[in-house]
Amino acid sequence: MEVELITIGDEIITGHTVDGNAAYMASQLVDSGFIVRYQTSVGDNSEDIEEAFRQALKRVEIVITTGGLGPTDDDITKRSIVKVFKRNLIFHEDILEDIRARYAKRGIEMPAINQNQALLPQGATFFPNKNGSAVGICIAEQGRIFISLPGVPFEMQQILGDHVIPYLLGLGARQAVRASKVRTTGIVESRIAEMIIPDLKLEPGVRLAYLPGYRGVDLRVIASGETQEEADEKARTLVRYLEEKIGRYVYGYDNDTLESVVGQLLRDNDRTLSVAESCTGGLLGATITSVAGSSAYFRGGVVSYANTVKLQELGVPQDVIDKHGAVSEMCALAMAAGCRERFDTDYALAITGIAGPEGGTEDKPVGTVWLGLATARDTRGHLMKLGGMRDVIRERAVYGALEMLRREILDIR
Amino acid sequence: MEVELITIGDEIITGHTVDGNAAYMASQLVDSGFIVRYQTSVGDNSEDIEEAFRQALKRVEIVITTGGLGPTDDDITKRSIVKVFKRNLIFHEDILEDIRARYAKRGIEMPAINQNQALLPQGATFFPNKNGSAVGICIAEQGRIFISLPGVPFEMQQILGDHVIPYLLGLGARQAVRASKVRTTGIVESRIAEMIIPDLKLEPGVRLAYLPGYRGVDLRVIASGETQEEADEKARTLVRYLEEKIGRYVYGYDNDTLESVVGQLLRDNDRTLSVAESCTGGLLGATITSVAGSSAYFRGGVVSYANTVKLQELGVPQDVIDKHGAVSEMCALAMAAGCRERFDTDYALAITGIAGPEGGTEDKPVGTVWLGLATARDTRGHLMKLGGMRDVIRERAVYGALEMLRREILDIR
Repeated sequence: MEVELITIGDEIITGHTVDGNAAYMASQLVDSGFIVRYQTSVGDNSEDIEEAFRQALKRVEIVITTGGLGPTDDDITKRSIVKVFKRNLIFHEDILEDIRARYAKRGIEMPAINQNQALLPQGATFFPNKNGSAVGICIAEQGRIFISLPGVPFEMQQILGDHVIPYLLGLGARQAVRASKVRTTGIVESRIAEMIIPDLKLEPGVRLAYLPGYRGVDLRVIASGETQEEADEKARTLVRYLEEKIGRYVYGYDNDTLESVVGQLLRDNDRTLSVAESCTGGLLGATITSVAGSSAYFRGGVVSYANTVKLQELGVPQDVIDKHGAVSEMCALAMAAGCRERFDTDYALAITGIAGPEGGTEDKPVGTVWLGLATARDTRGHLMKLGGMRDVIRERAVYGALEMLRREILDIR
Repeated sequence: MEVELITIGDEIITGHTVDGNAAYMASQLVDSGFIVRYQTSVGDNSEDIEEAFRQALKRVEIVITTGGLGPTDDDITKRSIVKVFKRNLIFHEDILEDIRARYAKRGIEMPAINQNQALLPQGATFFPNKNGSAVGICIAEQGRIFISLPGVPFEMQQILGDHVIPYLLGLGARQAVRASKVRTTGIVESRIAEMIIPDLKLEPGVRLAYLPGYRGVDLRVIASGETQEEADEKARTLVRYLEEKIGRYVYGYDNDTLESVVGQLLRDNDRTLSVAESCTGGLLGATITSVAGSSAYFRGGVVSYANTVKLQELGVPQDVIDKHGAVSEMCALAMAAGCRERFDTDYALAITGIAGPEGGTEDKPVGTVWLGLATARDTRGHLMKLGGMRDVIRERAVYGALEMLRREILDIR
């Protein structure tokens, strides 16, 4: 079944919010076998919203909107639904009770304005919202399904996953589609292309896309077939081909992240990790601990932003800093070794570099980053010359460090 | 002048990439006085791309696309331009030379596939790309401006800012528009509405939107007028009204972030900061150091993920952990005090909490976070009861800690 996503809000059309909702919904729907044909964004303007609703109801079977269901004045989606579907708003006492209970739990009195949240178009059903006060609204009419979800991402995500997708899957026949992602890091897009294109034969119904990002290049495989088995097999065949050609750069698949893969490797091998960070200021630790359960292998670390901290907390010798500077292989090695000893871990990763925009020199331009890795066997350094802006350099340094550890654990040289 | 943004890519329409480009472009264009009417996304499919191009050229004066200009096979934007505008591709030696030089600088040989990048539609001009190999393409024809930019965000951003916007501003009369953002944290959207709506009078041509996010609620003011002075004055009037009503929650404006505002306060007062983090794992330090120049006030910190690290590195007494647990006011106070002493800073912030999804108890459910702030005068704790998923809880804890410090420095009680 074909879907149109409509995201609503001045904040989107004027660019003050990134439209992560459209991406999230599309990905969940595609993975469940639906086809997303259109994504449209409009501002908080009744006329444009109604027009977008009418347009979408003409061309697809399922329309899903987000935004404009909150308690405040700029939330006009409900009024537009009422106009397009020619229905009245009905008050639902049970919804209001839920909202009141939610506020009570947080120890806050419910602002009266939330009463608007308990109004639904006549004949609509609703999907409960675990994380907020705006419920999802569902109207089924003349072979069309129209669903409105709140715009707050984690509220939308919960309603979509817990209610909307199960509901839609129950409606009818699924398309046979398999979407897979092969995730690489440490290799540029054009080099991947050179390695895989010469022998590449794409079966009918199979598509391959390169998705370059700061952290690496993902390869997206989308395969369709008469049956799910056929689609799965086509996708598997292409994934195997990619592994053959560029396997050493492949750290994971689909929703794997490098931090989750490295975490699993540490856990499987019963190893522990600590970190010493300079230019990344804690981003490596934050990335590692974004994985739930990371306390099983991650002990902690030192953010040695000032040089005095490198000396006092990590035992970097003063003359390493004097002779080689804080951004040097010697300093990265001393940071890693000092951290490993101090935190008594199997591995310690260190990052020291120049994230910019200031601080670069002829010898060490902005983007110069030294990584250090201390193990039971030895301590090694690795130089990265990174492009991009401050945040990009920091993210790439973090991914470089995690990849260095992945290769160490898997003994990839 | 009215603009349509078209973002191209299977990765967008299937939701595997969040379309940050559309938001970024819209925001830059709106701030420069352009009106973004439509945002459309299509997949890597010539037919859909050409249709979207033709549609857009009918309804607006300026069309800007991103994506589909890279070196690899899935990049079919250029072929679609050639078809829609009925032009040939012409080889540009100067573009290829630039690309070759870029690779040489990074010490990598240029993959031959990059030669595609030097082909431009006949009669098109180009905007150089400082950060990558795909240049921006510009075609002006019959009162329409058609611009294609690469999809890699920091490449697109540089070309847009350095070339596209100056070029478009040179073309004709600007609209008189002023967009401002008032940024708040520590207060929910519906409470803000209750505080500002009763006395609110919006002048004609002025719009106000609530933009709730994990870190706080932004209030977006968009004012238009006959002249720039008129638009500016209308926006200023509303901003002043908002400050009057909810000023204590306002930490900044427009592109201010809480981390940049707190950084500036530390710098202005010649104060230093260190951090001790448990459940955030380094995210507070990473957020603070995302601000260029933060080394002027940020010394560093300890990520005390394991309890042993809290004892050894921060001097938290064993019996605090035994009696109160690691997630407690006493532990947060000890972490902050220990950190301040160890790093010899004016302020130290500490975070300890349960980010979930595991680890919650009846007494201390997931989302329980204790903040600690040590100053020359005293050490204080603050309890947050946070909702949302792991990443949301961590981000909110970081913002809560920074806001605690902002209020301390500004003496807001």
